[in-house]
Amino acid sequence: MIITLKKGAPEHEINKLIHQFETQGLQVNMITGQNFNVFGLVGDTAKLDEKRIQANEWVENVQRIAAPYKLSNRMFHPEDTVVDVNGIQVGGENPIVIIGGPCSVEGESMMVEVAEKVKEAGGCMMRGGAYKPRTSPYAFQGMGEEGLICMDKARAKTGLPIVSELMSADKIDEFVKYVDIIQIGARNMQNFDLLKAVGKLDKPILLKRGLANTIEEWIMSAEYIMAGGNKNVILCERGIRTFEKYTRNTLDLSVVPIIKQKTHLPIIIDPSHATGDWKLIESMSLAAIAAGADGLIIEVHQNPECAWSDGQQSLKPEKFKQVVEKCKKVAEAIGRSVYEG
Amino acid sequence: MIITLKKGAPEHEINKLIHQFETQGLQVNMITGQNFNVFGLVGDTAKLDEKRIQANEWVENVQRIAAPYKLSNRMFHPEDTVVDVNGIQVGGENPIVIIGGPCSVEGESMMVEVAEKVKEAGGCMMRGGAYKPRTSPYAFQGMGEEGLICMDKARAKTGLPIVSELMSADKIDEFVKYVDIIQIGARNMQNFDLLKAVGKLDKPILLKRGLANTIEEWIMSAEYIMAGGNKNVILCERGIRTFEKYTRNTLDLSVVPIIKQKTHLPIIIDPSHATGDWKLIESMSLAAIAAGADGLIIEVHQNPECAWSDGQQSLKPEKFKQVVEKCKKVAEAIGRSVYEG
Amino acid sequence: MIITLKKGAPEHEINKLIHQFETQGLQVNMITGQNFNVFGLVGDTAKLDEKRIQANEWVENVQRIAAPYKLSNRMFHPEDTVVDVNGIQVGGENPIVIIGGPCSVEGESMMVEVAEKVKEAGGCMMRGGAYKPRTSPYAFQGMGEEGLICMDKARAKTGLPIVSELMSADKIDEFVKYVDIIQIGARNMQNFDLLKAVGKLDKPILLKRGLANTIEEWIMSAEYIMAGGNKNVILCERGIRTFEKYTRNTLDLSVVPIIKQKTHLPIIIDPSHATGDWKLIESMSLAAIAAGADGLIIEVHQNPECAWSDGQQSLKPEKFKQVVEKCKKVAEAIGRSVYEG
Amino acid sequence: MIITLKKGAPEHEINKLIHQFETQGLQVNMITGQNFNVFGLVGDTAKLDEKRIQANEWVENVQRIAAPYKLSNRMFHPEDTVVDVNGIQVGGENPIVIIGGPCSVEGESMMVEVAEKVKEAGGCMMRGGAYKPRTSPYAFQGMGEEGLICMDKARAKTGLPIVSELMSADKIDEFVKYVDIIQIGARNMQNFDLLKAVGKLDKPILLKRGLANTIEEWIMSAEYIMAGGNKNVILCERGIRTFEKYTRNTLDLSVVPIIKQKTHLPIIIDPSHATGDWKLIESMSLAAIAAGADGLIIEVHQNPECAWSDGQQSLKPEKFKQVVEKCKKVAEAIGRSVYEG
Repeated sequence: MIITLKKGAPEHEINKLIHQFETQGLQVNMITGQNFNVFGLVGDTAKLDEKRIQANEWVENVQRIAAPYKLSNRMFHPEDTVVDVNGIQVGGENPIVIIGGPCSVEGESMMVEVAEKVKEAGGCMMRGGAYKPRTSPYAFQGMGEEGLICMDKARAKTGLPIVSELMSADKIDEFVKYVDIIQIGARNMQNFDLLKAVGKLDKPILLKRGLANTIEEWIMSAEYIMAGGNKNVILCERGIRTFEKYTRNTLDLSVVPIIKQKTHLPIIIDPSHATGDWKLIESMSLAAIAAGADGLIIEVHQNPECAWSDGQQSLKPEKFKQVVEKCKKVAEAIGRSVYEG
Repeated sequence: MIITLKKGAPEHEINKLIHQFETQGLQVNMITGQNFNVFGLVGDTAKLDEKRIQANEWVENVQRIAAPYKLSNRMFHPEDTVVDVNGIQVGGENPIVIIGGPCSVEGESMMVEVAEKVKEAGGCMMRGGAYKPRTSPYAFQGMGEEGLICMDKARAKTGLPIVSELMSADKIDEFVKYVDIIQIGARNMQNFDLLKAVGKLDKPILLKRGLANTIEEWIMSAEYIMAGGNKNVILCERGIRTFEKYTRNTLDLSVVPIIKQKTHLPIIIDPSHATGDWKLIESMSLAAIAAGADGLIIEVHQNPECAWSDGQQSLKPEKFKQVVEKCKKVAEAIGRSVYEG
Repeated sequence: MIITLKKGAPEHEINKLIHQFETQGLQVNMITGQNFNVFGLVGDTAKLDEKRIQANEWVENVQRIAAPYKLSNRMFHPEDTVVDVNGIQVGGENPIVIIGGPCSVEGESMMVEVAEKVKEAGGCMMRGGAYKPRTSPYAFQGMGEEGLICMDKARAKTGLPIVSELMSADKIDEFVKYVDIIQIGARNMQNFDLLKAVGKLDKPILLKRGLANTIEEWIMSAEYIMAGGNKNVILCERGIRTFEKYTRNTLDLSVVPIIKQKTHLPIIIDPSHATGDWKLIESMSLAAIAAGADGLIIEVHQNPECAWSDGQQSLKPEKFKQVVEKCKKVAEAIGRSVYEG
Repeated sequence: MIITLKKGAPEHEINKLIHQFETQGLQVNMITGQNFNVFGLVGDTAKLDEKRIQANEWVENVQRIAAPYKLSNRMFHPEDTVVDVNGIQVGGENPIVIIGGPCSVEGESMMVEVAEKVKEAGGCMMRGGAYKPRTSPYAFQGMGEEGLICMDKARAKTGLPIVSELMSADKIDEFVKYVDIIQIGARNMQNFDLLKAVGKLDKPILLKRGLANTIEEWIMSAEYIMAGGNKNVILCERGIRTFEKYTRNTLDLSVVPIIKQKTHLPIIIDPSHATGDWKLIESMSLAAIAAGADGLIIEVHQNPECAWSDGQQSLKPEKFKQVVEKCKKVAEAIGRSVYEG
C-alpha cells in the first residue's frame, strides 16, 4: 500500500502514522519527494482500511497495490476453477455451456415444453424465474415455490439442470431442494447477507454483475461467497448501466479476458438482459464465445408476445436453435466446443 | 400509453392487438402516419407490461404517458406528506431536520458522546450503523444488535431519535424495537423482499437512492413500501455513480425539486456518502438546503482518523456545528428554518 | 411525433398549438385520455424542434417516432453502402479489413518498417497519427505534416492506404493530398464545423463515436457529413466512458448489429482505444468479428515500451500477426473472410 | 510518480528502467514488497508519459502523485485569479455575476429587448449564441456574424458585456471584435487546436466542462489555454452525462469546492443546460450560490415557446428577476453579494 502525505506534515504526525503501521506488523518505507512524502507499506495490508487512513488530514492519497481479494485471485490459485453442475463441468478447458429458458416460469406444461425445445436446440441447462425482481409492485412477481416445482418436473422429463434466482435468504431451503445453480441477481450483488447465506452452501452459485458495479466489486462479492466456504462460484456479466438508451444495458465483453486474468472462476454471458432486444442476441452470443466466455444464458420462450415478462428479449426456440448452431462454429474457430448432452 | 407499429404491419396483426387491448377495458385510438401507425390507449394502463407489448415483432416502440406510480404520485395526492418521527415532523413546510452521527456505532460511551455533541451542535436526530454493508468480507461488519443497544442508551441520554440501516428482513424485530427511522440503504433499494417487509410496518422508512438507479425506479421502490401499507417514506439522495472519480459519487441535487414535483414525499440529502470527502460537506449541505431539501444526514465522528469506517467523510463535532450554523442562515434566506429541539 | 398535453390545458392553448402545426403542413390527430391529451402529428416532422414545443407550459412530453436522420437511414436506403478506399471495398458483403499501425508516426524508417510488418501480418491498411489530440499541453503533439510525409513514403513502399486523424479544418489540404481515409476522432465527433468541412470532400471519412455520445448522436454526425455531399462514411466504435476504470473505456459491441439495422454504413471496431490494454485486444478483436464488424483498426508498434504515445495498448507485430490469423478463422466461422492484399 | 513492478521482474529489466529514469534527471527509490516491487520517482515527473511506462510488460501499474497541471494549480499559485470583464471583476471575493440571455440571437430588436430585461432584472452580462452547435444538420445553425452584430447593438444600449460561443478558430477575429467573453462549449472542451488558438488571446475565456469529462481533464484544458499565455480563464460547469434521463444532464455542484481547492480560477454554473428544464433553474441557481459559485449563466427569453432553440430551458424575464432576487438573499446568507451594475 502506498500512502502519500502532504508536504509540511509535522514530524510528530509522521511518526504517529509510522508507529501505527508498525504495530500492525507492517514495514514502512519512506520516500521524500518535492511536494509530497510517500510511505510504502510492506506486509499483509488486506486488513487495512484505506478510508480510515485517508481520514488523516495530512494524508493526500492512499493506493492499494495488492488486490483486496484472495480466494478468487488467480495470483494465489493459478489453476482454473471448474464447477460441477450435476455432472456438467463449467469452466477451464471444458465445453461451453448454453443455458436457455423463459424469464418467468408460467406453468408446468409451458416449462416442460420450453425445456424440451431448449434441449432439442442444443442447450444443456434450463433457466426460469420463480421469484421475480420487478421494478413495479404492480407487476407479476413470479409463481414462487410452485414455479420451482414446475421446473423440477421439466428436469425430470429432460434431465436439464435448473438455474433460478434466489432473492431472499428465507427461501434457501426451497432452492437447495429444487435448483442446481442458485442465481444471485444483479440487484442483489451487494446484498451481503444473501451472499453470506449462500456462502454456507455447496451448491453452485451464478453471481451476476450488478448494473453499476465495477469488476473489482463484483469479484469482492464472489469473495464473500468463497469466504463463507462455497468455492463453486460462476460469474455472469449481464450488461452495465450507461448513458446509452438504445439498449437496455451496455454489454461489457471485456470482462471475459479480465476475469480470466484476475481470477480463476468461470465466466458466462447473458446477452438477453444485456441488450434487452432479441434482435441483438445472436450477434452478442457469437461475440461472447469469440471473446472466450465459458457459457451463455439466453431467454427462450415459445411465444414471446405472450410472455409474462421480458418478452421483447426472448428468442423463439427455432431462433435459439440457429444461435446454438452458429455458436458451435465460432467455438470451433477458437479451438473450443459447445457442450452436447 | 402510445404504441408505435411498423409500417406494413398486416391488418390481422393490427386487429389482434386492438382486440387484446379492448378486452382489457382500454379504448384504442389509431393514427396513421407516413412511416408508422400509432395506437393511443386510453384507460388504466398501469397494469400493462410494456415489454410484453414490445415483444410483438410489429411493434416499433411503446411509451408510457402516465407515470407508473400512484400512491406516491403528487398528481393524485397534492398535499405534502409529513412524516412524524417521535414528534419531529419531517417534510412539508416543517423546519429542516439535520441528522448527525458516526458511520458505525463503536461502543456505548462513544455513541453517547457523539449523540450529545450532535445535539449540542444543533442536530435533532442521530444516525449510526449497527449492521454495515461492506464491499469486502474482510472489513468490519458492524456491532449488530449490540450497536442498536448502544444507540438506545444514547437516545435515553439525549432524546435524539435513531436512524439506522436494516440489511435483512430477519432483523426487523430488533429494528422495530430500537430504531425510530429504518434506513434502506442504496445497495438494497431494489431488494424487493426487504421493501415488502418494511411496507408492513408503520415505522418511518428512509429510502436511499440506489447508486445507479433512475429517479423513476427510486419512486417505484417507495411505491413498493407504500403499496404494502406504510405511507411513512422519506427519500434520501446520496449520490450516483458516474465516470467522475474525484468524488466517491456525484451528488444529484436536481432530485430535490423533481421529487417535490413528482411526489408528495419528503426528501433529504446525504452529502457524506455523496462526496466521500469531509472537505466538501459544508458546501454541499448549504447547496442542498438552498435547493429546498427537507433535511440532511451527515456523518459526524469525534475522531475521524480512528473511525472504524468512513473516517474520511466524517466531520468532527466542531465542524458539524459550524455547518449547522451556516445551514440556519441559508434556510432563513429561502424562507425556512432548521429544526431546533 | 407524439405530443402529450397536461390535463386542463385551456382550449385556446390547444387550438393555438393545432393551428401552429397545421400551418407547418402537418396533420394533427388528438386523443383524449384520462389524465392527458395527446396529439399525433402526421407529416414531415424532421424540421420540428422538440425542445421548442416542450417550452410550452402545457406540454408534458414530446416524443419523436421517426428517426431524425434520413440520408444514413436504412429505411430509405436499404442497400449497404460500400466505401472504396484505393480499390479496397469496405462494408456490405466485402471481406473484413484489418488496419494496423502506431498511435503516433515517429519518423520515416519507423513508419516504413511498421507498415511492412503490418502488411506481412495480413493488415490491408495502415494507421498513424501526425496530429495528436493529447489531454496535456505538455505531451507530444505529433510530427504534423512531416508525419504525413513519412506515411506517404510507407505507402509508396507497401501499397497500404493511409488512415490518419484530422483535428482542424485548416489542415484539410494536407490530408486530401496524403491520406486515404480521414479520421474524425472521438473528441471531435460533435465539432460540427469540422464535420461540415469534410462533408464537402469525397474522401472516405472514418467517424469515431464520441466517448459519451449516444448511437443516435453518432448517426446524426454522420448525417452532417452526408448532408454536405460526402457519402463515404465509415463508422468506428472505440469504447464509451463508464464508471468502470479497469479498462480505459467500455467497448460497446452491440453497436455492430444496431448500426447495421438502423443505417446502411460500414462499421469497424477499434479495440486498442476501447480497452487501453494490449492484453485485451485479441479477445475483443475476435468478438468484434463474430459480432459482424466490417473491420478492425489496431495499434501496432515495433517496440511499444518506447512508443511516443499509447504504448500500453499497442501490439507487437508478431502478436498482431497471431490476432489476424485468429480473426480469419472466426470470420470463416460466420461465413465471411478477411481481406488479403 | 509511483511505479509498481510485477514480482519476478528480471534484474536487468529493473536496472534498465532505473537507468532510463535516472538519465531523465529523476531520483529512483525502490521498495521491495511481498508480491510487488515499487519505484518512487522524485523530481519533475510532469514530462513523463504514464502510458509509455505502462507499456513495459513488467510494469503492473503507474500512479501520478503530483497533479499534471501547473499554471492552474493552486499549490503553485495560492491567490485567487480575478478576471476583469470590461470592468466587472469575476472570481475571488468579488460579487457574484449573473449572466442572462437567449440560447440563440434571433435579431436586433429581440436581442436589445432581452438585454434590457436582463439588466433590469439584475443581470450584469448578456449571453447569446450566434454560432450554434446543433446535433442535427437540419436544425437552425445560428445567425453567424449578424448575430454578433445584434449583440453589439444590445451592448451599446445596455452596457452589458457579451458572452458568446466560438466554435471554430477561423472566426476568432469576429469574436475579438464583438465579444467580451469567448465561450468554449462543452463539445469543444477537448478541441485542442481551438484551445491553443484562444490561448494566444488575452480576452477572457469561459471554458465549459465537456459532458463526459473528468474534473482533471477539464483543468488540463484550462491549462492548454494558460500554457498559450492567456491567464483569463473562467470555468463553467453545465452538467455531465449520466444514466438519469429525467434531466438533460446531471449538474455536478461538488465541482465548486473542488475547483476552488485544486485551482485558483473562478467557477460559474449553467443551470439551464445542466437541467434542460426551466422549472428546475431557480432551485439549482440557489444551490450553486450556496455552494460557493462565482456566477451563474442562465437562459432568458421573452417568449420561450417561440425560441429558435432551447425554449424549454429558458426563463421568462419576470421569472429570471425573481431568481436574481432570491440569489441575492442566499448570497448574503453565505457572506457574499450579487454584482449590481
